[in-house]
Amino acid sequence: MKIALDAMGGDYAPEVTVEGAIEAAAEYDIEVILVGNRDALEESLSGKKYPAGRISIHHASEVVMMEDQASVAIRKKKDSSVRKAIELVKEGAADAAVSAGHSGATMATALYVLGKIESVDRPAIATKMPSLEGFFILLDAGANIDCKPENLRQFSLMGNAYAETVYGVKNPRVALLSIGEEDTKGNELTKEAFKLIKPLDINFTGNIEGKDIFYGGADVVVCDGFIGNIVLKVAEGLAESIIKMLKREVARAATGRLGYLMLKPAIKNFRKQTDYSEHGGAPLLGINGVCLISHGRSTSKAIKNALRTASEMAAYRVHEAISRSLDLKQKS
Amino acid sequence: MKIALDAMGGDYAPEVTVEGAIEAAAEYDIEVILVGNRDALEESLSGKKYPAGRISIHHASEVVMMEDQASVAIRKKKDSSVRKAIELVKEGAADAAVSAGHSGATMATALYVLGKIESVDRPAIATKMPSLEGFFILLDAGANIDCKPENLRQFSLMGNAYAETVYGVKNPRVALLSIGEEDTKGNELTKEAFKLIKPLDINFTGNIEGKDIFYGGADVVVCDGFIGNIVLKVAEGLAESIIKMLKREVARAATGRLGYLMLKPAIKNFRKQTDYSEHGGAPLLGINGVCLISHGRSTSKAIKNALRTASEMAAYRVHEAISRSLDLKQKS
Repeated sequence: MKIALDAMGGDYAPEVTVEGAIEAAAEYDIEVILVGNRDALEESLSGKKYPAGRISIHHASEVVMMEDQASVAIRKKKDSSVRKAIELVKEGAADAAVSAGHSGATMATALYVLGKIESVDRPAIATKMPSLEGFFILLDAGANIDCKPENLRQFSLMGNAYAETVYGVKNPRVALLSIGEEDTKGNELTKEAFKLIKPLDINFTGNIEGKDIFYGGADVVVCDGFIGNIVLKVAEGLAESIIKMLKREVARAATGRLGYLMLKPAIKNFRKQTDYSEHGGAPLLGINGVCLISHGRSTSKAIKNALRTASEMAAYRVHEAISRSLDLKQKS
Repeated sequence: MKIALDAMGGDYAPEVTVEGAIEAAAEYDIEVILVGNRDALEESLSGKKYPAGRISIHHASEVVMMEDQASVAIRKKKDSSVRKAIELVKEGAADAAVSAGHSGATMATALYVLGKIESVDRPAIATKMPSLEGFFILLDAGANIDCKPENLRQFSLMGNAYAETVYGVKNPRVALLSIGEEDTKGNELTKEAFKLIKPLDINFTGNIEGKDIFYGGADVVVCDGFIGNIVLKVAEGLAESIIKMLKREVARAATGRLGYLMLKPAIKNFRKQTDYSEHGGAPLLGINGVCLISHGRSTSKAIKNALRTASEMAAYRVHEAISRSLDLKQKS
């Protein structure tokens, strides 16, 4: 598999992106195309050891900055690293693209360059989140701020195909995030969406409440991108705060230091379960190709894992599975 | 202070509500009026010790059930325990009402019987949540599912007055829950609300992201009731799941049993900080009187604390403070 990495994207690029690429090339059967300023990338690579032929550079003269507007980036920065990386996928020179840069610009560029799957109106970000049972897929995690019921219907189909194809979940339980389990509970958007999702030929289990998503009540949780992003961030902030509060409580206890030492391995394992860097990135579902969006704060480990995840998705040809599934389920 | 308790409301009523009333009467300077079926309440009280004159019964022949629709409850069950409890506040026979029953019916009844503060369009539920700094007030936590920008503007004023009056927070930092800190980030609702809140004479600190609310970035967090309820439930479910995951990890470690024993007091203290039953109930702000909504699963401790919180709010005359503040700030 050949993955095009936006080597200039992310808070610690290009040092950390290059480092992640080297780790991925050493560990997995992946070829990484580093896309970005040739001089800067050659400098980051110099003196480093990596498998010959598994890392190459594709020059791009511009970089989308965090303060750039996504639409402006598309119009004005035609030679940006993220644009070039995604164009390599379009041309067939790469199987997937990964970027830890400006996520809005990455989404807009992926949509512009690769286009949408025919029966999809709006692509969605699908994020894997931990639960007591293992994990669930939350979508949309932030691509679409204001949604229509039809968008949520399509998210449910895309999430279903994604969970089945990539994670091998049989007959995934697809649920709609709402404020009560009863069919009639929800806001205007979810109540209308409920009616559209119910007749679909998927295992729709109805509404799910916020407290139940982490208990493992569903494999796919559908919501609009505004709420999805808030849920994602609330979970991130709360998990971090709880660990801090627990540490503080343990330190306060009579058995302080010893208690902390005992807790440490548990926290480490727990962090591993909940750490975004373990899977490294979230795919943009609904576009004609594989494109992963990584956290701006990605470490080299996160980049390495994003490259692995991207190669898996390319191998599963996720976008084709989604397209087939949508065509099939739409008609049913 | 005299508090009217809907003694028939809640999953474990009337045993647990009566128990909570007895505990409150013993511990605080509070008179509790148990509202509900006289026979059932006398039976629950019989053989129990409680301070003479601090517990009385006010008969109500009906009970709103969880499956009742709120609007139907108002029209058809005119002698329900929750209705009678709130009517005692209206008549001046009680200073506040508390119910752990059907929350939708409690809200609707409070609105119907007590009416709104003049400059408020929609009352909101204000919930106290823990943060690393201490706590913050989240509103609306579920009273209004679909909101207009003007509602969010009023929530910010009510939250501001509430944090100041009841919790003594000086110049509370009021923030709008959104998906980015920049002024322009948000959905259609929050972007419009932002423009309405910004000119108000309060310490509006702009948008706040989900991950920052638990770090203590704001004293008052404003959002619509759909998102507020999801955030509340996500936090509840995630906190519980994290503790379960940590326990599992600790048990797995070589030092298993010992580690768990060490962790136990920390978890207990942590739970105390995050336990809804510590404050017992959330007030409905914006109505002409004091009415607290408690969790359906309320224990006697939660009821006891809700009665204490209600008496504090009545002492602060929260509704009058909100009314004054809204009149003042609206004009500024």
